[in-house]
Amino acid sequence: MSQQTTPDAQFMNQAIMLATENVLSGVGGPFGAVVVRDGNILATGTNEVTKSNDPTAHAEVVAIRNACRIIGSFKLDGCVIYTSCEPCPMCLAAIYWARCEAIFYGNSAAEAAKIGFDDQFFYEELSRSHTDRQLPIKQCMSQEAWVSFEAWEKSPLKIQY
Amino acid sequence: MSQQTTPDAQFMNQAIMLATENVLSGVGGPFGAVVVRDGNILATGTNEVTKSNDPTAHAEVVAIRNACRIIGSFKLDGCVIYTSCEPCPMCLAAIYWARCEAIFYGNSAAEAAKIGFDDQFFYEELSRSHTDRQLPIKQCMSQEAWVSFEAWEKSPLKIQY
Repeated sequence: MSQQTTPDAQFMNQAIMLATENVLSGVGGPFGAVVVRDGNILATGTNEVTKSNDPTAHAEVVAIRNACRIIGSFKLDGCVIYTSCEPCPMCLAAIYWARCEAIFYGNSAAEAAKIGFDDQFFYEELSRSHTDRQLPIKQCMSQEAWVSFEAWEKSPLKIQY
Repeated sequence: MSQQTTPDAQFMNQAIMLATENVLSGVGGPFGAVVVRDGNILATGTNEVTKSNDPTAHAEVVAIRNACRIIGSFKLDGCVIYTSCEPCPMCLAAIYWARCEAIFYGNSAAEAAKIGFDDQFFYEELSRSHTDRQLPIKQCMSQEAWVSFEAWEKSPLKIQY
């Protein structure tokens, strides 16, 4: 246990404790996250992929969903996220979409790779051109697809996010 | 409407129709996705960010969650995803985590940028080193965080994903 007593250290300790407890209790992977606003914990999350049969249920995503539910908004303006491990690309982009203000993390993606997680590999895949990726990805029917974007541009009902 | 009648075109048309309908009905953004296995639609999803106050509720993520719920697994082996727009980094990594086999998309991330979505910007951010990103990200307490990884390595309860 760290002897640091700054707020950042306290929140990070909380995220790490959640991660460790998540493993010891058999719930899921060694990942925990805490969303903080105005110096208080707004919501927490742990990895629930195998428990909930949801490959998107990473600690950060779960914490963001919980925080948004609590405040009744799809934006976490003014929030900081503390996560026991560097967010994978999915979680990192989720944090961007949620408009969090800062990220603190413990273990790195490279360290996660050492215990068998694919975060680092996914970062490498995303940095490659489409044709150089292992997972085939192909554009088609872009002309037809533009119709949905046109509908959005004209829609009087749209809520920007 | 396309006159193409290949299965790929039919599934893409379905994703595009979902996207357009999502806008016209006021549910959310112009995005739809279809998860296909063995030539049949397993699940669909549309963007529900503003409807459900969940910034992670993009069409692909919603479709993946729905598909996983239906088959009772956190893996979509053998599945192909058709999405009306190029997946953002969150959705792309979600597709990787779900172990889908291929991706077809309609609009590009650059086209999404033209109607005000941040997908392209997020791809650029993720490709930058931590110190060059607009969103501050900082590692701390990596030594303490490793404890959770150590617990995972020793755990007899762990389910790999």
